[in-house]
Amino acid sequence: MLVNCVAYQDGRKLADIPKEDISEYVKRPDCFVWVALKDPSATELEEMREEFSLHELAVEDAQTGHQRPKIEEYGDSLFAVLHTVEIQGDDLGVGEVDIFVGPNYILSVRIGTERGFADVRARCEHEPHLLKFGAAYVFYALMDKVVDRYFPVLDALETELETVEEQIFVKNAARSNIEALYALKRKLMTLKHAVDPLMEAVGKLYGGRVPQICAGMGEYFRDVFDHLQRLHAAIEGIRDMQTTAIQVNLGMINLNETEVTKKLAGWAAIIAVPTLIAGVWGMNFKHMPELELDYGYPLAIVAMIAIDVGLYLWFKKIRWL
Amino acid sequence: MLVNCVAYQDGRKLADIPKEDISEYVKRPDCFVWVALKDPSATELEEMREEFSLHELAVEDAQTGHQRPKIEEYGDSLFAVLHTVEIQGDDLGVGEVDIFVGPNYILSVRIGTERGFADVRARCEHEPHLLKFGAAYVFYALMDKVVDRYFPVLDALETELETVEEQIFVKNAARSNIEALYALKRKLMTLKHAVDPLMEAVGKLYGGRVPQICAGMGEYFRDVFDHLQRLHAAIEGIRDMQTTAIQVNLGMINLNETEVTKKLAGWAAIIAVPTLIAGVWGMNFKHMPELELDYGYPLAIVAMIAIDVGLYLWFKKIRWL
Amino acid sequence: MLVNCVAYQDGRKLADIPKEDISEYVKRPDCFVWVALKDPSATELEEMREEFSLHELAVEDAQTGHQRPKIEEYGDSLFAVLHTVEIQGDDLGVGEVDIFVGPNYILSVRIGTERGFADVRARCEHEPHLLKFGAAYVFYALMDKVVDRYFPVLDALETELETVEEQIFVKNAARSNIEALYALKRKLMTLKHAVDPLMEAVGKLYGGRVPQICAGMGEYFRDVFDHLQRLHAAIEGIRDMQTTAIQVNLGMINLNETEVTKKLAGWAAIIAVPTLIAGVWGMNFKHMPELELDYGYPLAIVAMIAIDVGLYLWFKKIRWL
Amino acid sequence: MLVNCVAYQDGRKLADIPKEDISEYVKRPDCFVWVALKDPSATELEEMREEFSLHELAVEDAQTGHQRPKIEEYGDSLFAVLHTVEIQGDDLGVGEVDIFVGPNYILSVRIGTERGFADVRARCEHEPHLLKFGAAYVFYALMDKVVDRYFPVLDALETELETVEEQIFVKNAARSNIEALYALKRKLMTLKHAVDPLMEAVGKLYGGRVPQICAGMGEYFRDVFDHLQRLHAAIEGIRDMQTTAIQVNLGMINLNETEVTKKLAGWAAIIAVPTLIAGVWGMNFKHMPELELDYGYPLAIVAMIAIDVGLYLWFKKIRWL
Amino acid sequence: MLVNCVAYQDGRKLADIPKEDISEYVKRPDCFVWVALKDPSATELEEMREEFSLHELAVEDAQTGHQRPKIEEYGDSLFAVLHTVEIQGDDLGVGEVDIFVGPNYILSVRIGTERGFADVRARCEHEPHLLKFGAAYVFYALMDKVVDRYFPVLDALETELETVEEQIFVKNAARSNIEALYALKRKLMTLKHAVDPLMEAVGKLYGGRVPQICAGMGEYFRDVFDHLQRLHAAIEGIRDMQTTAIQVNLGMINLNETEVTKKLAGWAAIIAVPTLIAGVWGMNFKHMPELELDYGYPLAIVAMIAIDVGLYLWFKKIRWL
Repeated sequence: MLVNCVAYQDGRKLADIPKEDISEYVKRPDCFVWVALKDPSATELEEMREEFSLHELAVEDAQTGHQRPKIEEYGDSLFAVLHTVEIQGDDLGVGEVDIFVGPNYILSVRIGTERGFADVRARCEHEPHLLKFGAAYVFYALMDKVVDRYFPVLDALETELETVEEQIFVKNAARSNIEALYALKRKLMTLKHAVDPLMEAVGKLYGGRVPQICAGMGEYFRDVFDHLQRLHAAIEGIRDMQTTAIQVNLGMINLNETEVTKKLAGWAAIIAVPTLIAGVWGMNFKHMPELELDYGYPLAIVAMIAIDVGLYLWFKKIRWL
Repeated sequence: MLVNCVAYQDGRKLADIPKEDISEYVKRPDCFVWVALKDPSATELEEMREEFSLHELAVEDAQTGHQRPKIEEYGDSLFAVLHTVEIQGDDLGVGEVDIFVGPNYILSVRIGTERGFADVRARCEHEPHLLKFGAAYVFYALMDKVVDRYFPVLDALETELETVEEQIFVKNAARSNIEALYALKRKLMTLKHAVDPLMEAVGKLYGGRVPQICAGMGEYFRDVFDHLQRLHAAIEGIRDMQTTAIQVNLGMINLNETEVTKKLAGWAAIIAVPTLIAGVWGMNFKHMPELELDYGYPLAIVAMIAIDVGLYLWFKKIRWL
Repeated sequence: MLVNCVAYQDGRKLADIPKEDISEYVKRPDCFVWVALKDPSATELEEMREEFSLHELAVEDAQTGHQRPKIEEYGDSLFAVLHTVEIQGDDLGVGEVDIFVGPNYILSVRIGTERGFADVRARCEHEPHLLKFGAAYVFYALMDKVVDRYFPVLDALETELETVEEQIFVKNAARSNIEALYALKRKLMTLKHAVDPLMEAVGKLYGGRVPQICAGMGEYFRDVFDHLQRLHAAIEGIRDMQTTAIQVNLGMINLNETEVTKKLAGWAAIIAVPTLIAGVWGMNFKHMPELELDYGYPLAIVAMIAIDVGLYLWFKKIRWL
Repeated sequence: MLVNCVAYQDGRKLADIPKEDISEYVKRPDCFVWVALKDPSATELEEMREEFSLHELAVEDAQTGHQRPKIEEYGDSLFAVLHTVEIQGDDLGVGEVDIFVGPNYILSVRIGTERGFADVRARCEHEPHLLKFGAAYVFYALMDKVVDRYFPVLDALETELETVEEQIFVKNAARSNIEALYALKRKLMTLKHAVDPLMEAVGKLYGGRVPQICAGMGEYFRDVFDHLQRLHAAIEGIRDMQTTAIQVNLGMINLNETEVTKKLAGWAAIIAVPTLIAGVWGMNFKHMPELELDYGYPLAIVAMIAIDVGLYLWFKKIRWL
Repeated sequence: MLVNCVAYQDGRKLADIPKEDISEYVKRPDCFVWVALKDPSATELEEMREEFSLHELAVEDAQTGHQRPKIEEYGDSLFAVLHTVEIQGDDLGVGEVDIFVGPNYILSVRIGTERGFADVRARCEHEPHLLKFGAAYVFYALMDKVVDRYFPVLDALETELETVEEQIFVKNAARSNIEALYALKRKLMTLKHAVDPLMEAVGKLYGGRVPQICAGMGEYFRDVFDHLQRLHAAIEGIRDMQTTAIQVNLGMINLNETEVTKKLAGWAAIIAVPTLIAGVWGMNFKHMPELELDYGYPLAIVAMIAIDVGLYLWFKKIRWL
């Protein structure tokens, strides 16, 4: 589906143009065309391939989808794949944004993502002094937006970890904690797979040799790289704590087992000792003088209770009960 | 066994040729020969060595088999070893494809693999504009096919992991989960040993200094590299989750142990308490007035049952039963 | 909030100047201005941006806060982000210091930190021979101070680890140890996130190609790098021991479980054996000659006690009790 | 002990020569001398040092022994240390081969190894076209042989791992498995310490800048490197599986514990329930009508058995027995 | 404390000189001065700083102490920090040696170490042909000695590991093993922190660009590097085995727990079954014909014993007892 197709000149919007006219505008040296597609059909992509003379392998990638994030040079143009990551209920949804950038065109293809980039277009059109940089600036703005949208996801994961941490030393929470930690790990991996390869790719857009298109925009791409590095470090930090949390959880489970065994032992003693005493006075010996006593029975009961109270207090003292 | 032996010129098939004529066609500058062998005998390999003047060490490797994936330069020719990985029932089968590429020949040697490369030949013959690139293009097409065949294997492993994940918090599934996780690890390692060394090797076929033969095909080899990187990242992802899954599994086993102990304790109490009471009224004291009561016995039974119902409800409440 | 605004010439303080005059002093070639802000408002930052013509992206970072430590070049000026780490009760508090350095100005922005840098200013003003180096020397002095303040934090963490280590083989301390180890890990990660990225960044301020501003100060920045490396190594060392300590803790928990089970078994035997004996003599067989004996009963009791003493000693010997 | 001392020219053996004549032959430009020592005395090494003018530090290393594998350049000669690894009963035996290579000599010193290199000498003498390369070829042939002898060791370790894997899910094999896995780890480390440093060292004998002596032999040293890489990858693979196997083993031990506890609980119930019933009918209440019944006793026994059969079947059903 | 202060010329000792004359001797081109300090006061260091014109930052480091091992260039001189590691009872003691080397002086500062370097001085003075190399050779000799003294420590740690390994599958040794493994880890980290940074630093003293002072001594520094690499590899090997040993230890603890539970279950059965039987014959049914038998009682006892013997043998067979 074609979302937008606009020509720009000197940092200002010229006009919405029909897609047939794209190749015409692309030829004008001081002008660039910005096209946005959403879940395009094979035909639409083929049209774009012809209008912009895109490389076959890049178009194939965009068609197949499920690429890992990357930025590839094809002659003087770039092909970038980015993952969008969105919180969907209890899980994370992953979409894809494929961007083709040439000296005077930018084509963004959104696949399986709800949120569009209308705000990026609006921001760019309000900053003509920056939009003058042309397609490369739009490329930066799109990447910046995609990366910015990772941060709320990261915050959600940090909150999840904190929730687990508050519960981790609470008794009887071991099962829900371990489930939460596993789910957290899954989501972390999803975010990590979006961030890490992109970080590596963006790192090549500034500094030493950079693609011609990105020249002079180094500080902007470094800024994106810096955000990605921050995400990367935070993800690694959560992973590290998550690993430790799983180990600690195992320790808590085993500690709990010990406590259950202690309780079992304590109560077993409290029941078994009077049972033994009752057994003794249940023996059938002829001569058992205490059995003849008038107060033998109540005394026996009192003795049993006294012993049990003693045992109970002692087990309390050593914290077995 | 000789599978095919065909000469090509200008991206088009010239003719199936007898193997004796190979050296003749190889001499023609604008022509290249594509030979496919399957589980060749030592004699067949020796013939090929002579026809193509292959390097002794490379032929020795092809003869011995069981190489790790690699791409080696011998003068202006390349020797590549690739692993094929196929799902065979519950396990993975590993075969080997050895490829010798020179400026105007390509020799593929298939060892221990069922599936051939007839489809690669068909595809190449239908793309004369690409086949014009000569032996290097065929080399790319073969590698691309081998690598493409890793993806269904990867999908199967991802499905296996998901199956385990669905079971991992289910009671009494710990044993089958742990067996499944170990089997998964084994298969992952097999796939990893096919992918990782190849990725490293293909990474040297584009970018900076590349073997003469591969010049001008950079984008194609980068595409193969990209696929391998995707496989690599997915394998690492599965490994990481698998490691966590094993830890979680251990936690579940220990949690289960605690639950069994709690159950044991609960039922022990329910049996032991009335046993104690019966013991008390089984004592032989002379003066035990309640024993004389007409309804003493039924009251005693009722008391025992009442206590046990109380215990049962209490253990239910604290989730020990 | 503006803390200070001072102009220096030839290593000596010229005067406290109003912020409106900054741009004027900055123009003088042999003079530099040192401004310190604390938790500045957006307006204050905007003023500074204009006075010093700072880069938009850098100012944006300072405004947003929560950056990871980094040092970035913007033309001939530098933008550095440092974390301050302070012990706050049982936890660590993290603040931020953002530093903008140009050929003849230095602007430090302190966010969320209590402790200021008045001592740095005092030290610099007492070392005119060093302050002659200009803004770069102040930059070094600020970094050096921030890094120096990490050491007491590190010492505190080392002490925490030692406290745990003293307790780790002590019985019944497992729960508090595991909680302490988890808290330690959290704090370590906080310190690590302050130290590691900074170390990486400072490593680029000496040696090969360095930013123009830092030229000739290599030995000083290497000294900061060396301190950071020491911190890094110590942090990694603590992490490593902490990981092992968690494993050892798990072992101790399980050992303890075994000991509890042994105790349970021992006492169970001591109670169950006389219960069995009492049961035997409680049977109702007609002919049980020992029941008729005058001293049958006391002998029975003595036998029970004797057996229990024997069991007790034996369990002591095998260390089950 | 001097094993051999032979002079070669043009790829052919000239003669066995006495060691006093070595320096004389070494002076001839087209000739090289190959000396093999076994567990040499200090005097023998000193003689060799003088004949070949070896570097003091290298000779010292050969004398001391217990070096890690390495290849060092001393001027235009090389000094290599290799480990031999042999299966000795249940353990691995490590020996050392020190090789000094110069433009026209090669001296191999075998320490603590049974198997010699007579077959290398035989092979070399049968390949005069290769032996023409001189000392460097002999160097390659010796290394190749040492490395080739690692493969049977690797196979043995793989077999050990497979043996454990077959047993790992078998009940009651946990103890022997864990012992086998630890022993396997030990041996793996031994092999790893022989392979990894050598791989690193051999990697510098081909490709970019190589020692003068090895020039033109690149493909041969790459072949050795390739074998070492294969060994390295296989060792890492076994290590990885071994680590997982230890974790799985721990899981099996804990699973087994749970099963024992379940069995204990099941049988305890089967014994305790009839004990309770017997206790009830052992009470001394006056009015217990069922005690008067003619068939009371047999009915009681039948009831007890019926309850136990029911319990038994139920425990079987929930797989506790 | 000044230990020595000697001037050398042409590899031979000139004279013990008073420290006031140092600067004079340092000026002579063919002469060098070797000073050894032990736990110096601030004043002594200040004197030396003036005599040798040492860099302020280096002297500050020597004064503060507790540096990590490093080698730093200050102009044409070097500043090295080395750790000495000594076995002190059950623990390792760490001292520091700081070395300042210039073209014609060497100053060694020993802090917190008992063992001095008199033997190094003696060795150097007996090797005038090497001492001619000047200060750099003394620098090598000192480092070589410090590094050589790590080996006995390493041997002690290897012995400790072996001691644990012999005990690791022995029952009831789990607690002492785990304590020993933790202590071993501590000591390993101490040695590692001495070795690894030094290895890194020494690696820059030979090969490509080296400090002017070390030129021509490459083979000697490589020898030190080689020793450090050997230490490094051995330390990593012990660490790796230690990690596995801790896991194995945990497995043994859990195995032991299972065995204790089995024993508990076995003996419980042996006591509980006759208790049940006694309970049955203790019931008060009117018609229990076997109670009337003359030999009922002895037969009952015999039956109980027979059942217990049977149980005992059966538990022995399944290895629960």
